Amino acid sequence: MTVPQWKSLAETKRQSILDAIPPKWRFQDPVPEPAELRDVTGSYIQQFLTPREVDITETDAVGIAEKTTSGQWSAVEVTEAFCHRAALAHQLVHCLHEVFFEAAIEDAKRLDAYYAEHNKPVGPLHGLPVSLKDQFHVKGVETTMGYVGWIGTFQGKKGDARRGVFESELVRELRSLGAVLFCKTSVPVTLMAGETVNNIIGYATNPQNRLLSCGGSSGGEGALIALRGSPGGFGTDIGGSIRIPASFNGLFGVRPSSGRMPYEGAANSMDGQNSILSVIGPLAATARSLTFLFKAVLSQQPWYHDPLVLEVPWRDDIERETRALIQASAAGESKLSFAILHHDGIVHPQPPVARALGQVEQRLKQLGHKVIAWNPPSLKVGYGLTGRIFDQDGGADIQHHIQLSGEINPPQTIVDADAAHLKAQELAALNVEKREYQKLYMDYWNSTAELTGTGRPVDGVISPCAPHAAVLPLKYRHVGYTSLFNLLDYTSVVFPVTHADQTVDVPHSDLQVLGEMDQTIQDEYDAEAYHHAPVGLQLVGRRLQEEKMLTLAEYIGEAVRG
Amino acid sequence: MTVPQWKSLAETKRQSILDAIPPKWRFQDPVPEPAELRDVTGSYIQQFLTPREVDITETDAVGIAEKTTSGQWSAVEVTEAFCHRAALAHQLVHCLHEVFFEAAIEDAKRLDAYYAEHNKPVGPLHGLPVSLKDQFHVKGVETTMGYVGWIGTFQGKKGDARRGVFESELVRELRSLGAVLFCKTSVPVTLMAGETVNNIIGYATNPQNRLLSCGGSSGGEGALIALRGSPGGFGTDIGGSIRIPASFNGLFGVRPSSGRMPYEGAANSMDGQNSILSVIGPLAATARSLTFLFKAVLSQQPWYHDPLVLEVPWRDDIERETRALIQASAAGESKLSFAILHHDGIVHPQPPVARALGQVEQRLKQLGHKVIAWNPPSLKVGYGLTGRIFDQDGGADIQHHIQLSGEINPPQTIVDADAAHLKAQELAALNVEKREYQKLYMDYWNSTAELTGTGRPVDGVISPCAPHAAVLPLKYRHVGYTSLFNLLDYTSVVFPVTHADQTVDVPHSDLQVLGEMDQTIQDEYDAEAYHHAPVGLQLVGRRLQEEKMLTLAEYIGEAVRG
Repeated sequence: MTVPQWKSLAETKRQSILDAIPPKWRFQDPVPEPAELRDVTGSYIQQFLTPREVDITETDAVGIAEKTTSGQWSAVEVTEAFCHRAALAHQLVHCLHEVFFEAAIEDAKRLDAYYAEHNKPVGPLHGLPVSLKDQFHVKGVETTMGYVGWIGTFQGKKGDARRGVFESELVRELRSLGAVLFCKTSVPVTLMAGETVNNIIGYATNPQNRLLSCGGSSGGEGALIALRGSPGGFGTDIGGSIRIPASFNGLFGVRPSSGRMPYEGAANSMDGQNSILSVIGPLAATARSLTFLFKAVLSQQPWYHDPLVLEVPWRDDIERETRALIQASAAGESKLSFAILHHDGIVHPQPPVARALGQVEQRLKQLGHKVIAWNPPSLKVGYGLTGRIFDQDGGADIQHHIQLSGEINPPQTIVDADAAHLKAQELAALNVEKREYQKLYMDYWNSTAELTGTGRPVDGVISPCAPHAAVLPLKYRHVGYTSLFNLLDYTSVVFPVTHADQTVDVPHSDLQVLGEMDQTIQDEYDAEAYHHAPVGLQLVGRRLQEEKMLTLAEYIGEAVRG
Repeated sequence: MTVPQWKSLAETKRQSILDAIPPKWRFQDPVPEPAELRDVTGSYIQQFLTPREVDITETDAVGIAEKTTSGQWSAVEVTEAFCHRAALAHQLVHCLHEVFFEAAIEDAKRLDAYYAEHNKPVGPLHGLPVSLKDQFHVKGVETTMGYVGWIGTFQGKKGDARRGVFESELVRELRSLGAVLFCKTSVPVTLMAGETVNNIIGYATNPQNRLLSCGGSSGGEGALIALRGSPGGFGTDIGGSIRIPASFNGLFGVRPSSGRMPYEGAANSMDGQNSILSVIGPLAATARSLTFLFKAVLSQQPWYHDPLVLEVPWRDDIERETRALIQASAAGESKLSFAILHHDGIVHPQPPVARALGQVEQRLKQLGHKVIAWNPPSLKVGYGLTGRIFDQDGGADIQHHIQLSGEINPPQTIVDADAAHLKAQELAALNVEKREYQKLYMDYWNSTAELTGTGRPVDGVISPCAPHAAVLPLKYRHVGYTSLFNLLDYTSVVFPVTHADQTVDVPHSDLQVLGEMDQTIQDEYDAEAYHHAPVGLQLVGRRLQEEKMLTLAEYIGEAVRG
């Protein structure tokens, strides 16, 4: 039997990623199997690095930028350290699609030369390595988005002059801020999945427990940053694709409302579908790094370069007001209130997630904040709408790209290929249903002003990101906890809370099962397999409340940790 | 032959509008024919009013609110004066669909009682009558949007519980600001037309020259405000429907970018179509009244009540910066620059509009501003995209509503009923084409920074609103001058410039005709018929630049007038 052409194409590409890693950074011995060695973070990966490399790579994005913009650390040294660690990370968990370390080091040299000549940085991200999900076009490298049929093309188009030379708007802005781009991270083919798997790189695993998924679709980002192979990176999110990997990897990640970060010139699935817009946001190990990266991009005035970005600069006044509310709380007079979504009426959170919710609720109460239960308009209705929006073309776009190479279909996608391909009038009716649901939800949020005692509705809602901690392969089934906030276009920041612990997270004993899906997911909870899987939660604000929610996430993230 | 049912329904409705006018305000004698008496504004309509009523109704919205919020004028007196004048206006030009003067006077009484009790106004619009296009639902009255099939229903749905009781979000906000609602104004059935005609009220004519159209689709608003039957009102604009009537009636009108004014709960054509969103904006006799109404609505925080409104309050800082630029100019050191769009490559402006453009260009130069020619990316491409977006359902929505009653089709609509009904994937591809065009146009705008001498791209573009002054009936053929800015979602403010003058506006002699449409429109120019037709122009800014453009429109509007 001959190997199908798509398989050899994929294999060549897979090998080319490894080949782009300098031999000095390649493992000579085989990497231990996940069953033998689940956790490859911390001391495991550190053993392959110098103490200096560990120091650099375990500093957060804000800390690194402080050093590189003041000339204390050279861009080259920082870049090389992250290239090395990213190379190790990829060999451990398959988190990269493109490796361009040489170009990165050349860029870093130019930055150092600039600093030497002018005694000042190029911009606020001077010398900071930043990783990118494989949707962003970077000159000199490919974008496959996991599709075998995109190899050697520009977004599946052969002979397109943009191939290898075109750069996405975000990439242009990051360069102009002084960032160093060095790799692109792996995604599930189609992007419409909660685990990262494709025919090129195979399955990307979770660095803290390689029996599990690193999440998706910005899964490579999540895994890479968890291994500190990058201090921060940019993913995208149409149903949870930033938040799921952030949650599964113990990171912070923000899904901003649409219209804040520039998507211009990035590859996408179902590009032009505008009922639920995919959005860009950063992932990082600290909350302050998210804010730092987010503000840096806004400083480039992306609204003059991307027609979908709103002319809304970072609003210092809102950040200040939020900090004042936090300070008033610290002084014993809480001016903040929160709500907890215990479950969505479709699937209960498994024990580790339920415990995380309880832990945050308790901590917020300890801090003196009013915490109420969140009982919004039917989440089943919202979930149904989201599904119908994702299914609007009956999978036509995805199938087109799969069939470019004839590769086998992905093992999972949240797009139903059997759905009817909607006509414009049906789509308009669906948009009206969506808007009506958004209105109900908004009115519900307003109504909580009666319950909080602050004179305002709740400041944020704490919600699961998924029913489970970092998920077992092929068990990611219910995207509703994240996709709801894409439907609503609300700001959501994920913060790490805890890790699954087989000694305390025993299966729920007397659960009122919510339906078939709930039963399946509860049955799939395996305390032993999930042990040590990270659990993050969402802090959700209203639309376009990025300044407020990033500021609150830093506060809550620290409170929960400490 | 029997009269079709739709005709008698329409006639009953038409009569009911007249019957809602108190007998004391009905004309006893027939209104003179348009050919005998073209202009019914000014002294003609004044003869039916008391001097006090003339004083009140010829004060602008800002001036009225100053009096009514300080107790100098009673809400009842002001409301009655406008009800009287609106009643006359409707009998002269068919500008109303709904008349609810009694309810208005009751509301005004309550406002006066409130003032008497509390010695303060309910809100900034206390006692100010505000008219509404017949898309807004007001309790106690119908919304037909010109469809015979909507009579006795809620948006065409029989037995819907919202009929007669539901109010649109804007209506709720206006009431809470203290405004008095008293009438709803006429529209072309389908809303997708530049003249106002439907089977209920017939044809709405232009108060300054009743041989001509008052424009559309917010044509009733334009005609009513031109006759000072309202100090200000709210229209909607998906292709020019605020700007065309503003221009045709010598008024100011703003098409804000989408996401600033609350559309929630208003009736619409092709509701849920979200490639080009219809937007709401005010029309009024003065620029400052637009700003006043716009700011008042924003003060209600519509973003907490309408899922499509952005959390962007009125930005005082931008208004201040713009005023500083204007003041620097007055001091002889212009910091402002503008561009003139002389024609769109499809249709030349007829002589009165070409003269208006020249007049504004000259005035801006006199004021010391740099003025450049505007040569954006192909407007044919932009016009083609707009057409395909409007045609996306092949007229299915419009035909559905027409067929509810079986009424005859409207004489004109810009939706092509022979167009193919697009599928979701085709629509997504069209949205991508639109975004690519927006990007080209944005980049072109940025590129003018090289030409202005201010260090910035042009601050605004002066463009025709239409190829002609207020148009001859059934001659509105080319919507491209306004619809382009819907495609781009740019802020546009219409300001009055001049009137057609048969003594100077002679047909172009040596025009390079741009094509068949241009030839037709140039051939249709009739200096005698157009005499005294108002000509307004657009001042166009970038997306979401309402604060800047409203401030500049006030400045330019005064400069051109003075």
